[in-house]
Amino acid sequence: MNISRPSRRVYDELRKVSISRNFTESAAASVLIEFGKTKVICAASLRNSVPRFLQGKNVGWLTAEYGMLPSATSERTEREAAAGKQTGRTIEIQRLIGRSLRQCVNLNRLGERTIQVDCDVIQADGGTRTASITGACVAVCDALRKRNIQGVFDGWVSAISVGIYAGVPILDLDYAEDFKASTDMNVVCKQNKGFVEIQGTAEAEPFPRKDLDELLRLAELGTSRLYELQEEAMVDRSALEE
Amino acid sequence: MNISRPSRRVYDELRKVSISRNFTESAAASVLIEFGKTKVICAASLRNSVPRFLQGKNVGWLTAEYGMLPSATSERTEREAAAGKQTGRTIEIQRLIGRSLRQCVNLNRLGERTIQVDCDVIQADGGTRTASITGACVAVCDALRKRNIQGVFDGWVSAISVGIYAGVPILDLDYAEDFKASTDMNVVCKQNKGFVEIQGTAEAEPFPRKDLDELLRLAELGTSRLYELQEEAMVDRSALEE
Amino acid sequence: MNISRPSRRVYDELRKVSISRNFTESAAASVLIEFGKTKVICAASLRNSVPRFLQGKNVGWLTAEYGMLPSATSERTEREAAAGKQTGRTIEIQRLIGRSLRQCVNLNRLGERTIQVDCDVIQADGGTRTASITGACVAVCDALRKRNIQGVFDGWVSAISVGIYAGVPILDLDYAEDFKASTDMNVVCKQNKGFVEIQGTAEAEPFPRKDLDELLRLAELGTSRLYELQEEAMVDRSALEE
Amino acid sequence: MNISRPSRRVYDELRKVSISRNFTESAAASVLIEFGKTKVICAASLRNSVPRFLQGKNVGWLTAEYGMLPSATSERTEREAAAGKQTGRTIEIQRLIGRSLRQCVNLNRLGERTIQVDCDVIQADGGTRTASITGACVAVCDALRKRNIQGVFDGWVSAISVGIYAGVPILDLDYAEDFKASTDMNVVCKQNKGFVEIQGTAEAEPFPRKDLDELLRLAELGTSRLYELQEEAMVDRSALEE
Amino acid sequence: MNISRPSRRVYDELRKVSISRNFTESAAASVLIEFGKTKVICAASLRNSVPRFLQGKNVGWLTAEYGMLPSATSERTEREAAAGKQTGRTIEIQRLIGRSLRQCVNLNRLGERTIQVDCDVIQADGGTRTASITGACVAVCDALRKRNIQGVFDGWVSAISVGIYAGVPILDLDYAEDFKASTDMNVVCKQNKGFVEIQGTAEAEPFPRKDLDELLRLAELGTSRLYELQEEAMVDRSALEE
Amino acid sequence: MNISRPSRRVYDELRKVSISRNFTESAAASVLIEFGKTKVICAASLRNSVPRFLQGKNVGWLTAEYGMLPSATSERTEREAAAGKQTGRTIEIQRLIGRSLRQCVNLNRLGERTIQVDCDVIQADGGTRTASITGACVAVCDALRKRNIQGVFDGWVSAISVGIYAGVPILDLDYAEDFKASTDMNVVCKQNKGFVEIQGTAEAEPFPRKDLDELLRLAELGTSRLYELQEEAMVDRSALEE
Repeated sequence: MNISRPSRRVYDELRKVSISRNFTESAAASVLIEFGKTKVICAASLRNSVPRFLQGKNVGWLTAEYGMLPSATSERTEREAAAGKQTGRTIEIQRLIGRSLRQCVNLNRLGERTIQVDCDVIQADGGTRTASITGACVAVCDALRKRNIQGVFDGWVSAISVGIYAGVPILDLDYAEDFKASTDMNVVCKQNKGFVEIQGTAEAEPFPRKDLDELLRLAELGTSRLYELQEEAMVDRSALEE
Repeated sequence: MNISRPSRRVYDELRKVSISRNFTESAAASVLIEFGKTKVICAASLRNSVPRFLQGKNVGWLTAEYGMLPSATSERTEREAAAGKQTGRTIEIQRLIGRSLRQCVNLNRLGERTIQVDCDVIQADGGTRTASITGACVAVCDALRKRNIQGVFDGWVSAISVGIYAGVPILDLDYAEDFKASTDMNVVCKQNKGFVEIQGTAEAEPFPRKDLDELLRLAELGTSRLYELQEEAMVDRSALEE
Repeated sequence: MNISRPSRRVYDELRKVSISRNFTESAAASVLIEFGKTKVICAASLRNSVPRFLQGKNVGWLTAEYGMLPSATSERTEREAAAGKQTGRTIEIQRLIGRSLRQCVNLNRLGERTIQVDCDVIQADGGTRTASITGACVAVCDALRKRNIQGVFDGWVSAISVGIYAGVPILDLDYAEDFKASTDMNVVCKQNKGFVEIQGTAEAEPFPRKDLDELLRLAELGTSRLYELQEEAMVDRSALEE
Repeated sequence: MNISRPSRRVYDELRKVSISRNFTESAAASVLIEFGKTKVICAASLRNSVPRFLQGKNVGWLTAEYGMLPSATSERTEREAAAGKQTGRTIEIQRLIGRSLRQCVNLNRLGERTIQVDCDVIQADGGTRTASITGACVAVCDALRKRNIQGVFDGWVSAISVGIYAGVPILDLDYAEDFKASTDMNVVCKQNKGFVEIQGTAEAEPFPRKDLDELLRLAELGTSRLYELQEEAMVDRSALEE
Repeated sequence: MNISRPSRRVYDELRKVSISRNFTESAAASVLIEFGKTKVICAASLRNSVPRFLQGKNVGWLTAEYGMLPSATSERTEREAAAGKQTGRTIEIQRLIGRSLRQCVNLNRLGERTIQVDCDVIQADGGTRTASITGACVAVCDALRKRNIQGVFDGWVSAISVGIYAGVPILDLDYAEDFKASTDMNVVCKQNKGFVEIQGTAEAEPFPRKDLDELLRLAELGTSRLYELQEEAMVDRSALEE
Repeated sequence: MNISRPSRRVYDELRKVSISRNFTESAAASVLIEFGKTKVICAASLRNSVPRFLQGKNVGWLTAEYGMLPSATSERTEREAAAGKQTGRTIEIQRLIGRSLRQCVNLNRLGERTIQVDCDVIQADGGTRTASITGACVAVCDALRKRNIQGVFDGWVSAISVGIYAGVPILDLDYAEDFKASTDMNVVCKQNKGFVEIQGTAEAEPFPRKDLDELLRLAELGTSRLYELQEEAMVDRSALEE
């Protein structure tokens, strides 16, 4: 595939991904994930209650919220708290994060507890929702380990964006690539299990089945690399020593 | 495929779909679409202005809103206007409808006009967002024809849900089927072009690539039948005589 | 009275009124009422609780909400759910509907249950609030009968608008008549009992007592015809067979 | 009519009504009106613009807002500004005040100016909306005179409540009477012209035409007395000297 | 100090302060306080419950709300209830009032009751927050006495503004003075105890320590005079006789 | 002064303060400031417009917003964007930050531009508002330098908290100290100029003038050390090399 990406990466190449645990001390677990210049603080907290619709059923819950600092984009983004409401985009993303991460835990074994995930973007360069899911899964794993809650974490869930740029399917789009892509797809997978979420949109022309098949292949490839990085993050030496 | 669907349909069978134009007289075009017991009023209006971000660019816009009557569900749904905000589900759906329908028009030829689509569910039995897209595309076509705006309508866009029920991929889920499905996917396609939107969610277990391939095949099958019904609705005799 | 109404009706003539039960299946009772081109879906639901201020008093409650589809008017109306609040007009109307319908039931015999009425206008051509009250009263009656709750329905309540057009009091104004009327009055009555609500407004000149007396006479006439149509709707054959 | 009102007044007796101009110095005109223990500050302000829907038409506008201090009732009322919204009752009342007062001015002669009326209840004992209308009409008259705007004030508009208490129609209900009345009606009239607004509600039983006729007669009687008090307030010596 | 204040007062002179109890009858206690042309109704109510965070701790609470009538300023102020939110200024002021007044009561002896303070400005000419605190302290004292709750009132808290006008520290600024002051400071003190709150802002140039010391001296002087007026208000004859 | 602070610092000792420029690349300038464990991202953006009340006056403006990540506190804080409003505390703080920083720039020389400051707390351990002011002043300085806007930056503004702990005035309280302090005061100063803001609150007992004098002395000491760190941050080598 002969293509010149703005990022100079080859079509199936991820950006440099870095996952750092213990970014702050305040939450049960706090992870800084970087997909190139995209940086997201992913935190997991635990509380000993569940939403009303689950009370008395002896199951747990996981929910997620997403935000972006106004300073995270080169043109400042309006602060949602000041505007008095979350945008439609934010609501869509946090619902996606929540649904995806409920696949990485066994809620039946959690007891009447809620895992609250917060993903806050401090620098945005494309792929903030997929970075959020990937990083927050590490934060959930870490929070459960730190609180010594066993048998709940159920496997790695990671996410990556794919898209069609200049007619060619590519992996992990940064902002410049996403801006010009004719199709944008976010895919969430679970290790050894399969697809958790697929959200694909034809920004310009509809896409044929053949391109779709290649996008799905790239997404499987990308998420399989991310599982390894998630795994590595959990054995990181400095974290262990702390 | 040996499966007993609650609806007693075979796995790749649509519900009875009916599309009636001129349901009300007030909007530029008003369509009642029925997917079995699911009934949605789809209206298209035109106004001679565009949102601020498009002003002065000599292009048009299409936007959509979605609502559900409180009485549309067997357990009454809270009225969003009274609650003072649209739910996350509503916002997601109306964004999806808008993006999808922007594929059925050539906005560059519309001039500085906005097509406003309103989809209001009066009875809900699963598949309200796919019925909305399918019916609203007819309303858009009809509104453009009634206003004699030529060269803008660009082809049929339709949508259908697919899902995995009792381990088997099936087409066009009603509420009872959707409630028990392990995977739920909404697919929007454009006639002779391909995929416009794919939104798939693993409600229970993640789904393997093989099942995904079959779901996509069913969706292509379902939308191809819907194009025919959209086409037929536009040549409906009673509408012509009016 | 020599007058040429835009609707070509004589001064004390109602529009064609049609009341259809079982319009949808989802609510306890669903009625489509038409006053000429004005069409309203009136639904009644029941729930086994009462608002906090009535808890523990062994009485029931009836409350109403009103809405208008954006596509119900020839110039599209802004969607209240998207705007984030109900307009003053909507709030006034739904309070009127609720007060009026509490006259058609004996709340002391309802037990700690709430009858929730929803009136949603799908096409508006004047008189939407009076059509709502008249149709919703049938829905309430029907819901109580379907749920076999006896001794609660207490008699027909119906409503009609009257006004002064070109100096002459007339009955049941459509939008074109209402737009030019110098006085607009909505009257709610109960069969064999008298007046339930009177809301009259001088749009242009104040009105003398003599005109007021005639308006009230017309309203009594109009509501007395509506009681008959309400009664007939309840014995409609097709509904019985269902 | 043999009746024992809680207020010990006879059936057609107003409470002591007092109208004081120049209650504060900040607004164009500020009036304190008292209907017995009910006390309302009525202010009129002028600004040199009109709402968008009237721009360029060379006509003026009058609009009104209504509020109640939390401390105005014996059981404290929640502050609407803190709750973040006006109640339905407030919205209804301020719309009524605005419509009523637009009858006391000739908007065609006002130019592109808006008269803003503010009615703020500092002590509530029934009849706050009728006191507001009656007092605010004086404030409007006073503001126009102080600003030397001639030919705009068009005659006195006043308002009074009537109701059926213990089966007998009575005039000007205080809170204790209103609380037990079976029918509550607010009537707005214009001097030498007739009825401006009628809002009557059967709180308990519907009311027959005969009672309605008596209520209307009482209201005409009450408002005719109020016109005199409005007139007197404008010739008050201390105000002239100021 | 040779200075010509717009108000013609000398640099350490208060405006005429008047404190009238029993301004309305509806609240537990209602005080009208006037600092020159600034007039505030201060009411104190009591309810037999505490906020959730204090429940079960056998302590009481005091909270305050602040508002300004739209007609209180010479240019009309937007009504917060209509705008749907309190301004930042209002929120700051009511938090200040609440914190300050919690110093005048012994909440440990109040039991599970809440003292609700409402300060509503009916005419604003500078110093509304300090007048509010000073007047509301009298209302709190009066409410406790009327309800015969002993051992809770803990001493006078009063507040005054100081500022630097034309380079000279002055006491109790009216609006004209405040508008031109280079520094504006509000100080709350408690009799025989010391400082409760200090909020000083350099509107133009930062202020040196020397000026700050003089401002604090003036504030101590001003509040010491206000304690006397608070004390006198409580022994006012007409109030005793009531 | 013999005192044992929880932080083991002496009474007039600051926490370790660190100021890092270029924390993110997206805003015009981005600074991470740390006061011990308190960490705040301070960003400054520029836009070529001013608020409406300043348009056409050829002056600039500076405004600030403040937020705290939900994960910044050990007990998770509710997300304001999800709650739909900023808390009173947030509004107070961002108004304080804005007022304070308008002292560090000469708005008359800025032209019709707005400096937008965003302070977002990623870890909170007391003193977040003073850290925000101190760090944001560096961000403002840096943004002006990067955009080569000269003659606008007007000198260092910094802020520190002081308080009375166990009866002794101390400098720079962390959360554990603040929680138990009887008086809490935030002081903002400008280098070589004096006091910009003083906000002091008696949390428990009112404080005497003597203690107040010592608190002010400590604050002057603390801010004078912070000016040096601000200055150093601007000459930081790594930033220069970038």
